Amino acid sequence: MNTSQEIQAEIRETGRLEAFSDGVLAIAITLLVLEIRLTADSEASLITQFLDEWPSYIAYIISFITIGIMWVNHDSLFKMIRRTDRTILLLNVLLLMLITFLNFPTVVLAEHIQTDDAGVAALIYSGTLMVIALFYSLIWWYVLAHQHLLHSSITPDKIKTLSRQYAIGLSLYVMAFLLGFINATLCVAVCFGLAVFFALSLNPARSTAKV
Amino acid sequence: MNTSQEIQAEIRETGRLEAFSDGVLAIAITLLVLEIRLTADSEASLITQFLDEWPSYIAYIISFITIGIMWVNHDSLFKMIRRTDRTILLLNVLLLMLITFLNFPTVVLAEHIQTDDAGVAALIYSGTLMVIALFYSLIWWYVLAHQHLLHSSITPDKIKTLSRQYAIGLSLYVMAFLLGFINATLCVAVCFGLAVFFALSLNPARSTAKV
Amino acid sequence: MNTSQEIQAEIRETGRLEAFSDGVLAIAITLLVLEIRLTADSEASLITQFLDEWPSYIAYIISFITIGIMWVNHDSLFKMIRRTDRTILLLNVLLLMLITFLNFPTVVLAEHIQTDDAGVAALIYSGTLMVIALFYSLIWWYVLAHQHLLHSSITPDKIKTLSRQYAIGLSLYVMAFLLGFINATLCVAVCFGLAVFFALSLNPARSTAKV
Amino acid sequence: MNTSQEIQAEIRETGRLEAFSDGVLAIAITLLVLEIRLTADSEASLITQFLDEWPSYIAYIISFITIGIMWVNHDSLFKMIRRTDRTILLLNVLLLMLITFLNFPTVVLAEHIQTDDAGVAALIYSGTLMVIALFYSLIWWYVLAHQHLLHSSITPDKIKTLSRQYAIGLSLYVMAFLLGFINATLCVAVCFGLAVFFALSLNPARSTAKV
Repeated sequence: MNTSQEIQAEIRETGRLEAFSDGVLAIAITLLVLEIRLTADSEASLITQFLDEWPSYIAYIISFITIGIMWVNHDSLFKMIRRTDRTILLLNVLLLMLITFLNFPTVVLAEHIQTDDAGVAALIYSGTLMVIALFYSLIWWYVLAHQHLLHSSITPDKIKTLSRQYAIGLSLYVMAFLLGFINATLCVAVCFGLAVFFALSLNPARSTAKV
Repeated sequence: MNTSQEIQAEIRETGRLEAFSDGVLAIAITLLVLEIRLTADSEASLITQFLDEWPSYIAYIISFITIGIMWVNHDSLFKMIRRTDRTILLLNVLLLMLITFLNFPTVVLAEHIQTDDAGVAALIYSGTLMVIALFYSLIWWYVLAHQHLLHSSITPDKIKTLSRQYAIGLSLYVMAFLLGFINATLCVAVCFGLAVFFALSLNPARSTAKV
Repeated sequence: MNTSQEIQAEIRETGRLEAFSDGVLAIAITLLVLEIRLTADSEASLITQFLDEWPSYIAYIISFITIGIMWVNHDSLFKMIRRTDRTILLLNVLLLMLITFLNFPTVVLAEHIQTDDAGVAALIYSGTLMVIALFYSLIWWYVLAHQHLLHSSITPDKIKTLSRQYAIGLSLYVMAFLLGFINATLCVAVCFGLAVFFALSLNPARSTAKV
Repeated sequence: MNTSQEIQAEIRETGRLEAFSDGVLAIAITLLVLEIRLTADSEASLITQFLDEWPSYIAYIISFITIGIMWVNHDSLFKMIRRTDRTILLLNVLLLMLITFLNFPTVVLAEHIQTDDAGVAALIYSGTLMVIALFYSLIWWYVLAHQHLLHSSITPDKIKTLSRQYAIGLSLYVMAFLLGFINATLCVAVCFGLAVFFALSLNPARSTAKV
C-alpha cells in the first residue's frame, strides 16, 4: 500500500462518520423551521399574527445558533480524532439523538414561554441542552483516556485548553438549567447568551488541530 | 490511466451510493423527532403532559438507536463491497425504503402501546425490523454468491464470522416478531434489548475490512 | 498545476453539484414516509386501520422506487458530464424541483385512488412523472448538442444507446399519462410497472461511463 | 508534509463547511413541498382543488428557484474562499438560518396572496429575501476586507465584477421589498423575475474561480 492510498484510507476512517453526523445535524437544524406556524386566531390581522409568533422566532434563533455551534464543535472534535472505536460510535449516536431531540423542547418552549408553565418549559429546554453538553464532554473525556485515538499532532497544551473549555461549557449549561427553577425568562436568556457567546468565541485556534 | 486516477475511480465507485444511502439514513433518523408531540389534553400541567409522552420517547430511542446501528452496519457492509451491480443497487433501494418506512411503525407503536391494540402495534413494529434484517441478509448472501464484488482483502474467516452474525441478527428479529403474538411489552423490550446489544457489540473488528 | 491537482479539480467540478442533487433526492425520497398516516376512523381495529392504508403503501412504494431509479439515472447522467454550464445548472434545478414536487401528487394519489376522482389523481401523478422524464431528456439532448461537456471516453455507440433509452423512457411515461384518461388503475399500474422495469434493467453497462 | 497531503488538507479546509451548508440548503429546498396541501374544501372536484392551489405552486417555484440560485451563489462564493475564520462561520450560520426560515414566509405568502393581507405577506416574503441578500453581501464585504482569505488566483478584475454583482443583487431585492408597500402582486412578480433573471445569468465565468 503506497502513501497516497494511506492518505485516502486515513481520510475515509472518520470521513463517513463525519458525513453522517453532518447530515443529521444539517437536517435537525433545518427541521426547526417546520415548527413555526401562524397560530389559529385568524381574526387578527396578518401583521399581528406574524408578530405574535415572536416566541417561535426566538426559540428558532436560539436552537438554530446552538445547533450551528454544536456542528462547529463536532467538526473540531472529530478533526482531532484519528480513529473511532465502538464507544465513540455509540456516544456519537446518542449525542446525535439528543441534538435531534432538541426540536421537541424548542416547540415546547415556544408554545409555553408566555404561559404559567414557562418554568417547566425552560427546564425541559435548558435540561436538554445540559445533557447535550454532557455528552460532548463524555466523548472528550473518553478520547482523553484513550489518547491513541487522537491525532499525534495534538499537543498537551491544546489538550489542556480544550479540557478547560469543555468543563466551562458544561458548567455554564448546568447553571442555565438550575436558573430554570428560579426564573424562566432568565434561564432562556442565559441559553441565548451562551449561544451568542460561543458563536462569538468560535474556535479561534481552528487550524491548530489540522494535520 | 495512472494509479492515482485508479484510486480515485475506485473510491468513487461506491462513494456516491454510500453518500446517498447515508443521506437517506440521516434523514430517516432525524425525521423521527417530528412525531413527538404533546397530545391534546391541555387541561393537564405541562410537566404531566411532558411525562405522559413516555411511549413516544421510548419509541424514538429504540428507532433512533436501531437506525444508527443500521447505519454502522450499512457502512461496514458497503466498505467490504468493491463494486456494485444492479442487483445490489436494487436491494439497497428496497432496504432504504424499509428503513425509511420505520418512521410509520414507530408512530403506530408510540400511539398504541398503552391501548388494547398494543399487540398489533408491536407486531407491525417488530415485523418491519424483521424485514429490514432480512434485506441486510439478502444483500450479504448476494455478495457471498458473487465474491468478485468483495474487496480481495476480505479473508474467508472474516466472511464466516459475518455470515454467522447476519444469521444470528436475523434469527433474533424473527424471534422478537414472534414474541409479539404472545406479549406486546416483551416484544418491544426485546427490540430495545437488541438495539442496545448490537450497539454495545458494534463492529469490534472494524479496521479489518479496511483496505 | 500538476496532474494530481487537475484530478482533484476535475472531481470537484461536478462533485458539489452531484452532492447537492444527491442531498435533494435523498430528502425527497425520505419525506415520502411522512405522508403515511392512519386515517381518522379510530373506531376500527388497528389492524383494519393499518391495512386500509394500502393506497398509501402502494403510492409510497411506486414513488420511492421511482425516485430511487431517478437517483441512479442522475448519477449515471452526471458521471458522463465532464463539466457543467449554466444551462445544465438551471435544468438540474428545475429537474430537482419536479422530483421534489412528486411528494404532493403521491399524497393526492393515495388519498383519491379509491374515490370518483381517481382518474384526475392518476393524471396528476403520471403527468408529473412524464414531465420529470421530459426534463431528463432535455438535459441529455442539451449535452448531446454540446458534446464538449461530455467525458471524452463516451463512445458514439454509448451515446446512441443512451439516446434510444431516453427516448423510450419518455415515450413510456407519455403513454402512462395518456392511459390516465382511460383508466386510473391501469395508469397507476403502468407507472408501477415502469418503476419495476427500470429497476430491473438498471444500468447494466455502468462501468462503461467510468473514466 | 508532502504536496499531496497539502492538497487534501486544503480541500478539507472548507470542505466540511460546504458540505454542511449544502446539506442545509438541500433540506431547506426540499421541505418546501411539505407545505403544498389540498385545502379543506372537499366539496369541490379534485381538479378544482388542485388548480386552486396555484398560489402554493407559484410560491413553491419562486422559493425553490431562489434557494437553488442561492446554492449556486454559495458554491461560487465559498470556492473563492481559501480558508474560513470564526466570523465567516458565524455569518454563514446566520445566512443558513435565514434561508431555512424562507420556508415560513413562503407558506405565509401562499396562504395570503389572495386575501386582503396580500401586501403584508408580500412584505414578509420579499423582506426575508432582502435580508438574505444582505447577508450574502456581508460575507463578501468581510472577505474583501480580509483578502488573505481569498484564493490567490482571484484577480482584482474578478473582485470588482463580483462586488458590482453583489451590490446590484442587494439593490434589486431592496427595490422588490419597497414595491411591497405599493402593490403585492408587483412585489411578488419582481421576486419571481429576479429568480428567473439570476437563474438565466448564472455565473457564466464559473471556471475562473477554479484553482
